[in-house]
Amino acid sequence: MKMKTRDRILHSSLALFNEFGESNVTTLQIADELDISPGNLYYHFRSKGDIVNELFGWYEAQINDLLDVPEITISMEDQWLFLHLLFETIAQYRFLYQDLVNVLSRYNHLQTRFQRIMKRKHKACHRICSSLREQGMLSASDAEMTVLSEQIVLTLSYWLSYEMLTHLQDKDAVDLGRGVYQVMSLQAPYLQPQERQLLAQMSEDYR
Amino acid sequence: MKMKTRDRILHSSLALFNEFGESNVTTLQIADELDISPGNLYYHFRSKGDIVNELFGWYEAQINDLLDVPEITISMEDQWLFLHLLFETIAQYRFLYQDLVNVLSRYNHLQTRFQRIMKRKHKACHRICSSLREQGMLSASDAEMTVLSEQIVLTLSYWLSYEMLTHLQDKDAVDLGRGVYQVMSLQAPYLQPQERQLLAQMSEDYR
Repeated sequence: MKMKTRDRILHSSLALFNEFGESNVTTLQIADELDISPGNLYYHFRSKGDIVNELFGWYEAQINDLLDVPEITISMEDQWLFLHLLFETIAQYRFLYQDLVNVLSRYNHLQTRFQRIMKRKHKACHRICSSLREQGMLSASDAEMTVLSEQIVLTLSYWLSYEMLTHLQDKDAVDLGRGVYQVMSLQAPYLQPQERQLLAQMSEDYR
Repeated sequence: MKMKTRDRILHSSLALFNEFGESNVTTLQIADELDISPGNLYYHFRSKGDIVNELFGWYEAQINDLLDVPEITISMEDQWLFLHLLFETIAQYRFLYQDLVNVLSRYNHLQTRFQRIMKRKHKACHRICSSLREQGMLSASDAEMTVLSEQIVLTLSYWLSYEMLTHLQDKDAVDLGRGVYQVMSLQAPYLQPQERQLLAQMSEDYR
């Protein structure tokens, strides 16, 4: 099945933004990449901002789906999977995270929407830590839980940029699993011996 | 004493880059801001890249000076001051950190220099944690020390962007002290009760 021009524009834009940074890509380059005329592109999207807007909507739908953590008991393995999926989504839309302050300064209608996502991330991480605490796997005061959740959200948001910085010459060596390990290591000092050992086993590949 | 045109260009560029993001500022805007002709600017700097290069040199000299942690016993208060000064330097050159992957993709001769700084940051943080461990204030295994230093470097590098994201509508509310608190909280679970209490006291203002 042939992809519609509109969708081809969005997919190509996402790839170019992720590769070169959104601010370094023009609509002319996008049209060029797809071998369509600038007029044809303009027919579908009036500006680069419209493309960014649509891609942000994709990202928003995908991450909100993930952040909708159900009110059930969460195991260490559930958490592990949750973090992997979150990192994969962030990697898919990494142009946003690599340049967040600048992107949100230029497209300021996205600010509230992004801040809402940050709050939901915070809530989801707190929810997971709470579930582990309720099961007696994790022991931390309320104040420690707040600091821990904050640190997890920060690491979730920036770990990919940090990892890319250390692998600028070899982007294929970027490994999302190391990010999952880094996040779970934040919990480590609060975990019971048994869970700490489980974490050590799960993360053997990422050291 | 009147500032030389060359220095005025550099200071104005730094202010504009920090405010709007380096990729959103043109040399024409810089000349405009200073009320000089584009030709006059061109006489001093052949391209925006030359300006970025020079500013990077400033940042590099300043941060390297800080990261030269002496081989002496380091107290909690020394660490507190060290972190404050580091965050201040990062804030002064925040255009770099807000857009690091993109800036380093465009000016790739800066990559090695930046990676060298990251390594020195890592070494300095490890050195400080080691000093606290030697004094019996902090108790952590070598593996825990590595994860902890990594997390401190990540937080040092991205905390300002994270803080700005949560204060996009009110940039004056951005508070470097909260970053210092966040970094020291990473150490908290490894600290002895007395040092943990000291940390709680020192950070009362930032909660």
